[in-house]
Amino acid sequence: MASILSVGQHAEFSKTVTEADVVLYAGITGDFNPVHINEVVARASRFGGRIAHGLLAAGFISACIAMKLPGPGTIYLSQSLKFMRPVRLGDTVTARVEVADWNETKRRARLTTTCRNQHGELVIDGEAMVLIPDEGSGAAG
Amino acid sequence: MASILSVGQHAEFSKTVTEADVVLYAGITGDFNPVHINEVVARASRFGGRIAHGLLAAGFISACIAMKLPGPGTIYLSQSLKFMRPVRLGDTVTARVEVADWNETKRRARLTTTCRNQHGELVIDGEAMVLIPDEGSGAAG
Amino acid sequence: MASILSVGQHAEFSKTVTEADVVLYAGITGDFNPVHINEVVARASRFGGRIAHGLLAAGFISACIAMKLPGPGTIYLSQSLKFMRPVRLGDTVTARVEVADWNETKRRARLTTTCRNQHGELVIDGEAMVLIPDEGSGAAG
Amino acid sequence: MASILSVGQHAEFSKTVTEADVVLYAGITGDFNPVHINEVVARASRFGGRIAHGLLAAGFISACIAMKLPGPGTIYLSQSLKFMRPVRLGDTVTARVEVADWNETKRRARLTTTCRNQHGELVIDGEAMVLIPDEGSGAAG
Repeated sequence: MASILSVGQHAEFSKTVTEADVVLYAGITGDFNPVHINEVVARASRFGGRIAHGLLAAGFISACIAMKLPGPGTIYLSQSLKFMRPVRLGDTVTARVEVADWNETKRRARLTTTCRNQHGELVIDGEAMVLIPDEGSGAAG
Repeated sequence: MASILSVGQHAEFSKTVTEADVVLYAGITGDFNPVHINEVVARASRFGGRIAHGLLAAGFISACIAMKLPGPGTIYLSQSLKFMRPVRLGDTVTARVEVADWNETKRRARLTTTCRNQHGELVIDGEAMVLIPDEGSGAAG
Repeated sequence: MASILSVGQHAEFSKTVTEADVVLYAGITGDFNPVHINEVVARASRFGGRIAHGLLAAGFISACIAMKLPGPGTIYLSQSLKFMRPVRLGDTVTARVEVADWNETKRRARLTTTCRNQHGELVIDGEAMVLIPDEGSGAAG
Repeated sequence: MASILSVGQHAEFSKTVTEADVVLYAGITGDFNPVHINEVVARASRFGGRIAHGLLAAGFISACIAMKLPGPGTIYLSQSLKFMRPVRLGDTVTARVEVADWNETKRRARLTTTCRNQHGELVIDGEAMVLIPDEGSGAAG
């Protein structure tokens, strides 16, 4: 884990959102909203077909924070999320995390966090606050 | 879906967070933070054992919104989340959604959203903004 | 849970049956019948492609009973199932439960239980017997 | 596939029902009855802890029919199920299928189908009707 962050540092993580991901996510969370699990209802909706759960795509932000920047050891304090566009089954989502503020004394960083689809369109916008413990002995979130 | 909300209306959804949930969630999101998937590292960390992903528990809020209040048809606009305490494997988490504001003209509601563990301790605190379309023809998030 | 049922009460639950559902169901049950998990064999069979396990679709009946009618607290005593037509991957199945008899003294109900595909064709026909305990303290099945 | 069955022929299939099985089965079917997915509620219920879905265990019967007796090619016509006792997480269930009647002209068999737990207690009792096509070209159910 980097002990010192700098504003502007950034990292990305990308994954295709599959039908299996949505099926499993519904099972984990209990979110059986018909737009996620019923193609007939979803096709007749404004979305024209099944879409992924918004918080599923937000998980890629968490993955990027935990795995890349700041990386293992980071404590996830908070996350704000605006759901800008639906993520469709088969879309490839890129989460991007960028250091917006870094307070070395408090060891806290503010990160801008976004998810875009394969067309570059913003699907999630938001911010995260994270804490990087001195000892780097654990991570939450 | 209720066409009219009132301030103070609330709903809850509870689920035990199992090891399988955490394994599957890691696979869906790519968040392989050792505190979630490595018992040796997690035991030596401040948490004393593996914990669930913070956004996994947040999914119960989304489930409660989509399934109960306001229910199917709701458009999920935004969600803020503060991760207050870790969720351990085997914890039973109760998500609670309560209407804090309801603007009938704009058909928008502000919801207070919390998750508590089986001891009643707050594990996630936050707010959601949702839109309830007139026609009720679809749902996002 | 409704403490008193009336004949004719009904509820429905719909879900699209995905490839992931069939894969996971095979793994849970050990039913690796080639028509479910081998596209080459299934394509050459009378079905012309992989089909879902009959008991997988029957699970939507159980979901409808447990979640909607009679709802949480119901004890599942028995279920009869006639498999009328195959369910193909991608089909959207609607389970329907209707109260056919309700014996308030014994707190037992007979339910007609059906599953139809997106074309309205009957894929499963059957009946369930359920018990609704006075105290509503638990549920089986 | 055996082309000729005889009354009394039997086969068994056994599997331990894990927490992961129950989590996945809930996700496949949408059956989030609290006795299956909420340890706090389930512990306070008559069952004293989470139990598996009744139809999950019934799937072992289908597996035994499809994999062993009569085996691949069998058409699953019907299944009746009586849920006699709950299946707890960690129980090892043995499904047993026995030929009760075999009509060679119509190529139909009536099978007695049971599931027992590791204590030999009957958890599911029932019967299945199956058809064994001449050509053996496919199987349903």
